[in-house]
Amino acid sequence: MRIAVIGGGSSYTPELVKGLLDISEDVRIDEVIFYDIDEEKQKIVVDFVKRLVKDKFKVLISDTFESAVVDAKYVIFQFRPGGLKGRENDEGIPLKYGLIGQETTGVGGFSAALRAFPIIEEYVDTVRKTSNATIINFTNPSGHITEFVRNYLEYEKFIGLCNVPINFIREIAEIFSAELEDVFLKYYGLNHLSFIEKVFVKGEDVTEKVFENLKLRLSNIPDEDFPAWFYDSVRIIVNPYLRYYLMEKKMFKKISSHELRAREVMKIEKELFEKYKTATEIPEELTKRGGSMYSTAAAHLIRDLETDEGKIHIVNTRNNGSIENLPDDYVLEIPCYVRSGRVHTLSQGKGDHFALSFIHAVKMYERLTIEAYLKRSKKLALKALLSHPLGPDVEDAKDLLEEILKANSEHVKLE
Amino acid sequence: MRIAVIGGGSSYTPELVKGLLDISEDVRIDEVIFYDIDEEKQKIVVDFVKRLVKDKFKVLISDTFESAVVDAKYVIFQFRPGGLKGRENDEGIPLKYGLIGQETTGVGGFSAALRAFPIIEEYVDTVRKTSNATIINFTNPSGHITEFVRNYLEYEKFIGLCNVPINFIREIAEIFSAELEDVFLKYYGLNHLSFIEKVFVKGEDVTEKVFENLKLRLSNIPDEDFPAWFYDSVRIIVNPYLRYYLMEKKMFKKISSHELRAREVMKIEKELFEKYKTATEIPEELTKRGGSMYSTAAAHLIRDLETDEGKIHIVNTRNNGSIENLPDDYVLEIPCYVRSGRVHTLSQGKGDHFALSFIHAVKMYERLTIEAYLKRSKKLALKALLSHPLGPDVEDAKDLLEEILKANSEHVKLE
Amino acid sequence: MRIAVIGGGSSYTPELVKGLLDISEDVRIDEVIFYDIDEEKQKIVVDFVKRLVKDKFKVLISDTFESAVVDAKYVIFQFRPGGLKGRENDEGIPLKYGLIGQETTGVGGFSAALRAFPIIEEYVDTVRKTSNATIINFTNPSGHITEFVRNYLEYEKFIGLCNVPINFIREIAEIFSAELEDVFLKYYGLNHLSFIEKVFVKGEDVTEKVFENLKLRLSNIPDEDFPAWFYDSVRIIVNPYLRYYLMEKKMFKKISSHELRAREVMKIEKELFEKYKTATEIPEELTKRGGSMYSTAAAHLIRDLETDEGKIHIVNTRNNGSIENLPDDYVLEIPCYVRSGRVHTLSQGKGDHFALSFIHAVKMYERLTIEAYLKRSKKLALKALLSHPLGPDVEDAKDLLEEILKANSEHVKLE
Amino acid sequence: MRIAVIGGGSSYTPELVKGLLDISEDVRIDEVIFYDIDEEKQKIVVDFVKRLVKDKFKVLISDTFESAVVDAKYVIFQFRPGGLKGRENDEGIPLKYGLIGQETTGVGGFSAALRAFPIIEEYVDTVRKTSNATIINFTNPSGHITEFVRNYLEYEKFIGLCNVPINFIREIAEIFSAELEDVFLKYYGLNHLSFIEKVFVKGEDVTEKVFENLKLRLSNIPDEDFPAWFYDSVRIIVNPYLRYYLMEKKMFKKISSHELRAREVMKIEKELFEKYKTATEIPEELTKRGGSMYSTAAAHLIRDLETDEGKIHIVNTRNNGSIENLPDDYVLEIPCYVRSGRVHTLSQGKGDHFALSFIHAVKMYERLTIEAYLKRSKKLALKALLSHPLGPDVEDAKDLLEEILKANSEHVKLE
Ligand SMILES: [Mn+2]
Ligand SMILES: [Mn+2]
Ligand SMILES: [Mn+2]
Ligand SMILES: [Mn+2]
Repeated sequence: MRIAVIGGGSSYTPELVKGLLDISEDVRIDEVIFYDIDEEKQKIVVDFVKRLVKDKFKVLISDTFESAVVDAKYVIFQFRPGGLKGRENDEGIPLKYGLIGQETTGVGGFSAALRAFPIIEEYVDTVRKTSNATIINFTNPSGHITEFVRNYLEYEKFIGLCNVPINFIREIAEIFSAELEDVFLKYYGLNHLSFIEKVFVKGEDVTEKVFENLKLRLSNIPDEDFPAWFYDSVRIIVNPYLRYYLMEKKMFKKISSHELRAREVMKIEKELFEKYKTATEIPEELTKRGGSMYSTAAAHLIRDLETDEGKIHIVNTRNNGSIENLPDDYVLEIPCYVRSGRVHTLSQGKGDHFALSFIHAVKMYERLTIEAYLKRSKKLALKALLSHPLGPDVEDAKDLLEEILKANSEHVKLE
Repeated sequence: MRIAVIGGGSSYTPELVKGLLDISEDVRIDEVIFYDIDEEKQKIVVDFVKRLVKDKFKVLISDTFESAVVDAKYVIFQFRPGGLKGRENDEGIPLKYGLIGQETTGVGGFSAALRAFPIIEEYVDTVRKTSNATIINFTNPSGHITEFVRNYLEYEKFIGLCNVPINFIREIAEIFSAELEDVFLKYYGLNHLSFIEKVFVKGEDVTEKVFENLKLRLSNIPDEDFPAWFYDSVRIIVNPYLRYYLMEKKMFKKISSHELRAREVMKIEKELFEKYKTATEIPEELTKRGGSMYSTAAAHLIRDLETDEGKIHIVNTRNNGSIENLPDDYVLEIPCYVRSGRVHTLSQGKGDHFALSFIHAVKMYERLTIEAYLKRSKKLALKALLSHPLGPDVEDAKDLLEEILKANSEHVKLE
Repeated sequence: MRIAVIGGGSSYTPELVKGLLDISEDVRIDEVIFYDIDEEKQKIVVDFVKRLVKDKFKVLISDTFESAVVDAKYVIFQFRPGGLKGRENDEGIPLKYGLIGQETTGVGGFSAALRAFPIIEEYVDTVRKTSNATIINFTNPSGHITEFVRNYLEYEKFIGLCNVPINFIREIAEIFSAELEDVFLKYYGLNHLSFIEKVFVKGEDVTEKVFENLKLRLSNIPDEDFPAWFYDSVRIIVNPYLRYYLMEKKMFKKISSHELRAREVMKIEKELFEKYKTATEIPEELTKRGGSMYSTAAAHLIRDLETDEGKIHIVNTRNNGSIENLPDDYVLEIPCYVRSGRVHTLSQGKGDHFALSFIHAVKMYERLTIEAYLKRSKKLALKALLSHPLGPDVEDAKDLLEEILKANSEHVKLE
Repeated sequence: MRIAVIGGGSSYTPELVKGLLDISEDVRIDEVIFYDIDEEKQKIVVDFVKRLVKDKFKVLISDTFESAVVDAKYVIFQFRPGGLKGRENDEGIPLKYGLIGQETTGVGGFSAALRAFPIIEEYVDTVRKTSNATIINFTNPSGHITEFVRNYLEYEKFIGLCNVPINFIREIAEIFSAELEDVFLKYYGLNHLSFIEKVFVKGEDVTEKVFENLKLRLSNIPDEDFPAWFYDSVRIIVNPYLRYYLMEKKMFKKISSHELRAREVMKIEKELFEKYKTATEIPEELTKRGGSMYSTAAAHLIRDLETDEGKIHIVNTRNNGSIENLPDDYVLEIPCYVRSGRVHTLSQGKGDHFALSFIHAVKMYERLTIEAYLKRSKKLALKALLSHPLGPDVEDAKDLLEEILKANSEHVKLE
């Protein structure tokens, strides 16, 4: 089996490869082939990767996207359209308009999506015509891209991943001294806009204990997070990104008074690549980079797609009845039963009105943005921006859009 | 036939009675009976009304709610829970927290709803047990109350009305020199959160002409309203109350720099009641009061419920398939085929994603608020406030709720 | 305005033209153009029609389907694919297998549908590419064809008609000495498989009176129809064609011991065409032909599509929420609000489980038959036949299908 | 943990106990308590059971239903309302009217259901008020009873079981030399009216191979079963009970020319109970009794409800999105993910139109029958019978119902 990794020059690549090494005892991996438009960065990473892998499987570099995916059974998307330069704009421009500047949420997620769509469209088309491989996507905004691919490009073998669910599971497992597989959640929402209603560990409903734990933590760090009453009131564990929606003013202050995360990451990456040139083990600095456990999420998913065990993974896919009071065609981040290449959603009952309030609004925004892209329409793009809970007021919308489009003119053109 | 008017002391009453006089040639009205907790104001109004009605039908005053509704075929709710004093709080308190202070929208609508629910619950219960009359509701927030009555109290013969749809129809009719009945709309949404996708006059699709007209008007008054590009982009006519969502900052500035509308209305009402004491015709000053054509909406609805002609009315009722991509049970403001006591919704196809983004979010807020009321729960009330697009951030939510509850402590208690 | 009539040589044509003459005072008809593959029969009919019409509008004959429809605003389909010869097979072949032989129901309707689909496909395609006219369809099986056109050919301006609803309305109007427009029904189902739950006359619910009337009639003619207890039990008025489902054995005996209806009709038509050669008024013999009031249904529908009055018509169209517990995309026979070219379905609440039992089963059969046709697949055709409540057992299915295909080999080929 | 077995005197009991013995190494079973209205038969069986169990867990007999269930975590329903005498009527009466006489299907299933409902209603009520145990139901008609309990009695912890799915899985496993857990199915429908679209073994799609196998078998025994072309045409594996629908005449001949199965079973049971008096091992004769693997189905289900492994079981439960084009509330027989007391349905995509044709019709019949029972209404019972694809024509319906009600007058009364 060949696995293609698109965005091979990512600083995450070594961790991903470690994940693949871990599962290579359960499933047979013959080759891992890398592709990146930044050949230089990729060279550094892949050379390091070869030292890690030794002869467990072949490590290859491809000159073109097509030759990477043509014989692949799995294709992992982890490229960053527009690079960290693009992210810098996503984070910086909204701030000028008094809006949250964040890589995946709100206006920043909007420009990131517009940059990603043309590449995704081309890449998915190539995979469809060649290997018909299963695509595992980490490229952000991951859920928005999955909505695009599943409902508009209509390519079915596309699974959106994020490391938030697995990290939450890991935290729970740690609290209760359990294994990852002992944790089962009633979990739903959009990527970076998800909600957890129930937590089970080894079959026991520990939801109340988790709330107590959360409140305890919050009471120690009152300024950093939701107040303790928040969980008493809402009774749902929210994705950390909900802070941007629920504490918009505070979060705006916080991020506008710090250096942009993009610039921090640039520095971290610089150091990392220096290390990669000679490293034989994954350097500790990688943990600063974020993205914890993302390799575990991907590697375990591949393992469970390749075997007939039947395991639960929380991924972005079409609802198909999982949340009874959301439409079947919404792409959601939900637990699925994964077995031998099939991904079945699990019935979870009804979703909470509080959660649905955000999920619906942002799903409508997602679709408007996709339609704006597909029609290359500035008018529809404005409509999309105005529909977002964190989007601009009418007064600023036009200037903001123009500035975004100017900054991203190499990547996408709307008229 | 007897018609009961609850809130008989309203300054609108004379206009309503004029509407009833207009239809009294088409349908037989024997008696109109008034009930108000403010007996003094009601006395002034009803005395004036008697001078208007002469002997066209009997004009009565009831001592109790029950005796007013017991023999009624229609009950009109037009009372204002908490009076203008209550409205003053609804408008004033949010402003202190940097939030829109508006009678029906956002936080102000939240406190108005909490004041209304206990009275509505009691009144609907009495009607159910006595006359089983059809209730026509103008009490605000009219759509939210209809959601409460239809889906939670499960009383079916309850129709929510507002004068926005009929005024829009009147404007269109004027532009095209047509009659009200010549206008047909693709219209949907929540009360004060509604959207018009298509306008037909005498069967002709004039939607583009209406957009041109709107843009022309906007270009003359650039500071007062949406910019002209707004309609080019959104391609939906929005309810005027959408300004609060789409131009939140501007509207906040505007309303926070003026006297509260509640106080203006107090003055207008004072003058009006002075006039009513002696008037024999409706005084011109009533037009300043707002509420234009509300009597036409109610009177025509009663006429068409009483006859077998089959006419279209835009009312608040359960969707039941009218908008294909909204759940059947959402109470929406939509066109209905009204005939002999029956109200059938009409299929209108799919709703636009932009419109749905707001409709879904606010419907979820509506339900959370109702659930908070039914459980008398402060915790759920906080959850409801946090879910509203115009609601507070987490930092302010608790103080805001406490202030609202304190100001309304005579009307509702949450724990 | 031009109206095209396809199947101009039908013996019904003069009655249709009379209907058009009736509405020609309300809507402007410039030309009616006829097309038929049987030019000889058409010549006789159209010459007669010209005598009827005088100079109220132009009466034309077209050489081709395309030239008939190209400038038409309405196209009326009333042709019979395969003629009465085809019908003879539809009625005769099933009898050999112990099955109901009926023109539109069960196995006979299956072969009629297979003959119709290729012609409908071609004709609808031509209309789509030329005039984009509204097609009003009487060609049987009318509902099945509407399912085909709306859901598979995806042509929207296609309305399936039948004279059963208007005749039922006429009967009710007669019983209660009312006008057609005074009658309003809760009516739903498939064409020739429809159900009436409620009858209103001038706004009054007369359902119980109608049941009493039906039972009275039945008690006088016990052998001909449902027993009186039937309506006490089922509490729904059923389309007369339900006899084939509910009294299958009795109906089989009845039809297998009479001459085939196709042959009777051949004789009637022969006489009729003899009369048409010289007639100046519609001959009384036409009433024997069946099809009562079908011209009224079509003419009134055109009138109400052309005007802005807003009237109710029971037609075959997509459910779109009319019956809450049936899917939106089922083509049903239901009341619609017709106004200025638009057809809106009306919310009617839930359908009864008894009715739904038949509606679902036959709708699934309809779709299987359409899919068999689209793939020209004998295998799928067998599957369709086996799914029909009046279809063959497995033992007979193959022979039956072969005999049907042989008899219809000029019209449709499956492999 | 205590398990209560209702219908302890069943001849199946020893096999069930063997199943419980098998899982008693994985889950802790403290006591199994039996209850039966036939104390004599139960005594014989339980004495035998005690010899089987030795001291693995306590074996108890309860005098009352309530004392059996009050401390139970699981309650297994395997009683036969009306006993074999009741079954004799279910099978014999329909034959007199030319209808299929079968214990669970068609008219026989109807009378069995009417006998079962009052007992089920009382028993479920008692469980709800006492232990709130999970009920595992084998009492027939198992799916119909589950529809009754889940949707009308609204008791959630009720799972309908049948041995058809596990036997199918066993057969497949044997063909492919695999384990039960290696088989995964796209399976849906009603109990005894189910359909298999896809078969996977160890992750491989072996559906085509299964069809070839079925056809091979059929070609060897042409008179006993579907012809080989059937599977080529329908492309779905059907539950053996579909024979009654698809080969009604042939099956009628077959069953009406043999002794009633009820009488055969009476003889087998007599012999069996003779053996049970002295047996220490399960006698071979039990295999003649039918019901193969039913104990495995129940025991494995309990094991997987008690553990956190997450396993697939095909059970009767609410659809909840599993089959996308069937309503969420239909009780279906479908694969579920069973883990720590929770039962999640799995998304399986759309159901085939052929399958849906039968599923819908019989589900509507099920609901009509339940409503007839709840209202104790003969009229509704007639309506239910008329709606069933294997039910009587109108001519016979009344006599048939009267005869059924007379034969079952001790169990149920309708008016
Ligand atoms: Mn992420
Ligand atoms: Mn209003
Ligand atoms: Mn017809
Ligand atoms: Mn069974």
